Amino acid sequence: MQQKYFKKVFRGRPRGRVVKVTHSFWQPRFCRFGSWAWTWHRSSGHAEVASHIDHQKDLQLEYTTIYTWGLGEKKKKKEKKRRLAADVTSGVAVMKFKNPPVNSLSLELLTEFVISLEKLENDKTFRGVILSSDCPGVFSAGLDLTEMCGRNPAHYAEYWKAVQELWLRLYLSNLVLIAAISGACPAGGCLISLTCDYRVLADNPKCLIGLNETLLGIIAPFWFRDTLVNTIGHRAAERALQLGLLFPPAEALQVGMVDQVVPEDQVQSTALSVMAQWMAIPDHARQLTKNMMRKPTVDRLLKQRDADIQNFVSFISRDSIQKSLQMYLEKLKQKKG
Amino acid sequence: MQQKYFKKVFRGRPRGRVVKVTHSFWQPRFCRFGSWAWTWHRSSGHAEVASHIDHQKDLQLEYTTIYTWGLGEKKKKKEKKRRLAADVTSGVAVMKFKNPPVNSLSLELLTEFVISLEKLENDKTFRGVILSSDCPGVFSAGLDLTEMCGRNPAHYAEYWKAVQELWLRLYLSNLVLIAAISGACPAGGCLISLTCDYRVLADNPKCLIGLNETLLGIIAPFWFRDTLVNTIGHRAAERALQLGLLFPPAEALQVGMVDQVVPEDQVQSTALSVMAQWMAIPDHARQLTKNMMRKPTVDRLLKQRDADIQNFVSFISRDSIQKSLQMYLEKLKQKKG
Amino acid sequence: MQQKYFKKVFRGRPRGRVVKVTHSFWQPRFCRFGSWAWTWHRSSGHAEVASHIDHQKDLQLEYTTIYTWGLGEKKKKKEKKRRLAADVTSGVAVMKFKNPPVNSLSLELLTEFVISLEKLENDKTFRGVILSSDCPGVFSAGLDLTEMCGRNPAHYAEYWKAVQELWLRLYLSNLVLIAAISGACPAGGCLISLTCDYRVLADNPKCLIGLNETLLGIIAPFWFRDTLVNTIGHRAAERALQLGLLFPPAEALQVGMVDQVVPEDQVQSTALSVMAQWMAIPDHARQLTKNMMRKPTVDRLLKQRDADIQNFVSFISRDSIQKSLQMYLEKLKQKKG
Repeated sequence: MQQKYFKKVFRGRPRGRVVKVTHSFWQPRFCRFGSWAWTWHRSSGHAEVASHIDHQKDLQLEYTTIYTWGLGEKKKKKEKKRRLAADVTSGVAVMKFKNPPVNSLSLELLTEFVISLEKLENDKTFRGVILSSDCPGVFSAGLDLTEMCGRNPAHYAEYWKAVQELWLRLYLSNLVLIAAISGACPAGGCLISLTCDYRVLADNPKCLIGLNETLLGIIAPFWFRDTLVNTIGHRAAERALQLGLLFPPAEALQVGMVDQVVPEDQVQSTALSVMAQWMAIPDHARQLTKNMMRKPTVDRLLKQRDADIQNFVSFISRDSIQKSLQMYLEKLKQKKG
Repeated sequence: MQQKYFKKVFRGRPRGRVVKVTHSFWQPRFCRFGSWAWTWHRSSGHAEVASHIDHQKDLQLEYTTIYTWGLGEKKKKKEKKRRLAADVTSGVAVMKFKNPPVNSLSLELLTEFVISLEKLENDKTFRGVILSSDCPGVFSAGLDLTEMCGRNPAHYAEYWKAVQELWLRLYLSNLVLIAAISGACPAGGCLISLTCDYRVLADNPKCLIGLNETLLGIIAPFWFRDTLVNTIGHRAAERALQLGLLFPPAEALQVGMVDQVVPEDQVQSTALSVMAQWMAIPDHARQLTKNMMRKPTVDRLLKQRDADIQNFVSFISRDSIQKSLQMYLEKLKQKKG
Repeated sequence: MQQKYFKKVFRGRPRGRVVKVTHSFWQPRFCRFGSWAWTWHRSSGHAEVASHIDHQKDLQLEYTTIYTWGLGEKKKKKEKKRRLAADVTSGVAVMKFKNPPVNSLSLELLTEFVISLEKLENDKTFRGVILSSDCPGVFSAGLDLTEMCGRNPAHYAEYWKAVQELWLRLYLSNLVLIAAISGACPAGGCLISLTCDYRVLADNPKCLIGLNETLLGIIAPFWFRDTLVNTIGHRAAERALQLGLLFPPAEALQVGMVDQVVPEDQVQSTALSVMAQWMAIPDHARQLTKNMMRKPTVDRLLKQRDADIQNFVSFISRDSIQKSLQMYLEKLKQKKG
C-alpha cells in the first residue's frame, strides 16, 4: 500500500534510497518494501522514506516523505500516547533540490517543482513540506542564467512564466512550507525561501541569504520586492535590494530574513519541530488566514502577469544585459575549468 | 454639580461605590456626595469617583473618572502650581470592563460600550480614556461565543455589526486611548487593546495577548488583520495570525504587541503617566494626525461593511462551525461545573 | 578646467574656500586654482574642493565636491590600483546647508537646492551626494515659519509647491543620497534626511531627530507620513507623529529613524565610507530598484499635488494657526534678543 502510494506521488522510475537519519535517538532499523526503502525510528515512531527521480542527467529532485510508521488504525490507537510528536509530524514531505552543482532553477526544475507541489496540494495525506537541498553548500543559486542568455524571446517568456508560476504556487500554497537552509541562498533561492511560512538557517558564515540581483546589474521584479517587503519591511527591503545585500546568519536573523539560526546539524530537526507547531493548527482556519495575508500581494502580479513577462523579455534581450550575462557565465566556466 | 454631571454620563440607576486606590501617597479621604462617592488623594490633588451601572445580572460596566478635585475656579488657580501632574491627567476617564467571569463582549456590553464612548467623545471634559478590567486575571476574553452559537442569522448579523461598530469607534476615537492590561487578553480583547494609542501589560506569565482565532478553527476578519499588521508589521502578523499565537509579556513587548511591560501593581500608574505625555499634545493636531494614520484602514471596512457581515453570518451559520462552537461551550460549562 | 567645471555647477560669484579636512592620514597640501581652492589628501588620493555661493545675506549654500585628484587619463590609469578607495568615492558631492542660524528652509534655499540637485543629477560626473550642515548644532530646523506667517495665500501656495518639489526631487533622486547629521534634525530637516538612502547621526544628546509638527499644533502632510512609515513602519510612525517625538541618538537608531550613530567627529568619514559601499553597485540597477521602491509613494502626491497645496494654504491661513505661529515667532525673537 505504501509502495502504491509513492508510485502515485513520484513519477518516473523510482529507485529506493535510504536517506541519512538526522534526529534518531535509538538505532534506526533499515527496511525495504518492494523498490522502496525507509528508516524506522523506534524512538519517535516515524519513518523516513525516500524516492529518487532521475529523469535526466542535470535534473534531479529528491523527495523524502515523513509519516507515522504503521498506518493501520489498530497500531495507531495503541501507540497514540507514546508518539504524539510523530503523529503531529505525519503528513510532512521533505523536498530536496538536487540539480548539481548549485541547484540552479532551470526551466525543467521549475516545471517539475510546480507539478510536484500541485500533487502534494491535492493529496490529502500531506499537510506540510520542508524545502531543503541535497547539494552541499548551497540551498539554491537561483535563476538559471543559461536560460536567460543566448536564447530567443519565446524561450525567455516561457522561462519567466515558469518562474512566476513557481512563486504563485509557493506563496499561496495551502501546505505549511518550511525552508531548511544549510547553504548559500541568493537571488531566486532566497525568493523561494521567502515564500515559505518559516525559515531555519544554518549558523555558518557561508550561508548567505539575500536578493542580490543589483550586483549582477539586473533588477528584482516587483513581486520579489513585495515578498521581501512583506517579510522584512519597507526600509530594510529598500536598502537590501539596492545594495544587493547577502546577509550572514546573525544579520539575516536580526533583519527578519530568517526566523531562526541553528547549528548546521540541527537545521532539519529544527524544521521538523517547528513544523509540528504549525501542524497543530486546524488546516482550514490556517489556510484561509494565510490566504487573507498573501492574496493581495499575489493579485498584484496576476493583474499584470503578461506585462511583467514582456518587461522581462525586453529587459533581458538588451544587448548590454546579454553581454554582461555572457561575461559572467564565461567567468563561471573558467572557474570550473 | 458633579452629581448632575455624572447622572448625565451614566444612565441607569447609579449607586455610588468607592474604587480601590492604586497610587496614593497620603492616606486617601473617603467622601460622599448624594448617591456618589469618591476618594480624594491629597497627595496628587485628584479624586477618583466611581459609578456603577447594574442593568442586569450579566452586564456590568464600571467607570472611574479621574479629574482634578474642586472644579471651582478659585481653588484651581490657587493650587495650580502645586499639582501640575494632576492638571495634566485631568480629563481622563478610566473605563473598567466588568462582565464576570471573563468580560466576554456580549451584545449588550458592546452596545453599552459604544454609547459610553460616544458620550465621552462629545463631552469636552474628557480628552483621554484608560481601558482596563475589573475582573481579576482577564482583560477581556473577547467575543461572546453564546452570541454566535445556536441563534438565528439576524442575531448573528446584529452581533457582528456591533463588533464592527465598536472597532470603528475605538480605532478612530478622538480621545487618547490607553490599554492597562492586567490579565489575559486574547482574540476580541486583544483587538480592543490594539485600537488603543498605547498598551501597558502586566509582567505576569498569565497575561497572554494575541489574536488566537485559528486555534478555535475560526478566522480573524480582515480588519482584525489590518489592525495587527499596522501594529506589528506584515511578517509578524502573518505568523501570529496563522499560529493563533498568544504572546507572554516579554515576547509581546519584543514583537511590538504592547508598548510597555511593568510589574502588575504599576500597570495603572504607568498608564496614567503615559497618558500625561499624550495629554501634553494639542488635541486638534494629534487627532488629525491619528485620523491620517488610521482612516485608510477604517475606510477599507466601511467600503464593504455589509459584505463583511454577510461573510460572518454565512461562515458562523455553517453546521461544522456551530458544532465545534457548541462542543467548546460544553467543555467550558463542564470546567465551571 | 576644474574651475570651468565648477563655474558650471555653481552659479553666482564663487569665492574659493578651503574646507576642513576630516579624515586625512598624511598632512594635506593646500592648493589654489584661480578662485578655487582645495585640499589634497595624499593618503587617500582624493581632494576636497569647496565653492561658496553668497547670493544674499540670509541665504548661503556651500558645496564640497570630492573627486579623484588629477582627472588626466594618464595619471588615473597609473594610480588605479593604488587608490581603489578613492576611485570608489569619486563622483561624490558634499552639499552643506548654510542658512544661519538654523538652516531654515526658506523659499530661496528650497529653490536653490532643487536647481543644484537637478544639475548634479544631469552631470554624469556625480553619482552620490552627502547632505550635511555648515551651521554648528543643527542639520536643519525645517520649514521657515516666516514663509508661512503673515503672507498672502499665493505666497503660501508657492512656498508649499517648493517644499513638495524638494521632496519629489530628493525622494526619487538617481543619486545616492546620504545624510551626515551632526546637529538637531526636527520637522522639515528630518524629512530631508528621511529621503536619503542612508542616515548617519552624531552621538550627541542634542542631535534630536523627528517629525515634531504636532508640538507646534500643526500636522505633518500625508507624504511626510508616507516617508516616515516607509522608514520606521506604521506603528512607530503613528506614535512618533502623534506625540511629535524627537528621538535622541540611541532611540533614533533603535526605532530605525537613522541607520548608524557614531561619535560626532566620525560622522563625515562614516558617511564617506558608507557612500563607497553604495557606489560599488551598478548605477542603473540601483536606480531602477530605488525607483521601484519609492515610485508608488511619490505617485500618491503627484495624483493630488494641487489639492495638497490647497489644503496647506487653507490650513495655514486660519486665524488660529496664524496666531499661534506669530506667538511662536515672537518667542523666538525674544530668545535671540
